[in-house]
Amino acid sequence: MKPEDNLMTQEAAALEQVLHHDIPLTREMGVKVLSWQNRQLRLHLPLAPNINHKSTLFGGSLYCGAVLAGWGWLHVRLREAGITDGHIVIQDGQISYPLPVREDAVAICDAPDEAIWDKFVTTYQRRGRARLTLPTRICAQGSDVEAVRFVGQFVLHR
Amino acid sequence: MKPEDNLMTQEAAALEQVLHHDIPLTREMGVKVLSWQNRQLRLHLPLAPNINHKSTLFGGSLYCGAVLAGWGWLHVRLREAGITDGHIVIQDGQISYPLPVREDAVAICDAPDEAIWDKFVTTYQRRGRARLTLPTRICAQGSDVEAVRFVGQFVLHR
Repeated sequence: MKPEDNLMTQEAAALEQVLHHDIPLTREMGVKVLSWQNRQLRLHLPLAPNINHKSTLFGGSLYCGAVLAGWGWLHVRLREAGITDGHIVIQDGQISYPLPVREDAVAICDAPDEAIWDKFVTTYQRRGRARLTLPTRICAQGSDVEAVRFVGQFVLHR
Repeated sequence: MKPEDNLMTQEAAALEQVLHHDIPLTREMGVKVLSWQNRQLRLHLPLAPNINHKSTLFGGSLYCGAVLAGWGWLHVRLREAGITDGHIVIQDGQISYPLPVREDAVAICDAPDEAIWDKFVTTYQRRGRARLTLPTRICAQGSDVEAVRFVGQFVLHR
């Protein structure tokens, strides 16, 4: 294992502790942090504790996975940028469910364009408040097909 | 207690059993059915199992409460209309969080316009598939102020 991989694993483990501590329901839902690599965050959302009567993942749990991927991405990325005095709040969310999920799922959040990120950080540093739109997605484990598409408007404030 | 009240209580109790059986996570979240009266459904969403580190209700749990109010409303209303062969699926959802919730919450779904409902039922009976847009809302217990606004697009299919 290279030192960078070890650092990434530390970030992932730290985020998982934050999620389980700050939002106890994530423990009941079995949410785990899979990886933080190349500024992409991947969370694991198991089927069993989130199942519905059709043996698919409950739409409410899928929303939780999608919003936590965005929240978690922002949490880790802000630490990386040395910004530790902010509070992250979800303001709005739009979700669509093109496919049911019949197994464990992976929620994924990628970095937004660098220009958008830079503007977000600059606005926060000037005004103590800034808004970032983050898309996330959910795929069944082992698949690349989007089963859930989510866009969240997150606000960072002091 | 009038016979009608008793009937309403039975519908509410039956829906709570369906929710807890079909979506086990609703037990962990402590979701209860408060009432089904005048075609308005009210669910109770307690703070404790859904709390976050700011001592407010987790945004993902609020989404679950909002979507379950819509799903539950449709479930009960369809039984009332004698339609028992359909499957209810959430297709899309839009949520906004104008206010944090610092105590137990109530998720509320009212009947849509009668013309919209009639068209939905007719379409389903003709085609075996129909789509209904249902707005729901969440208020802190004892308050009438909307802390969460949700609109869900639900599909009923055979």
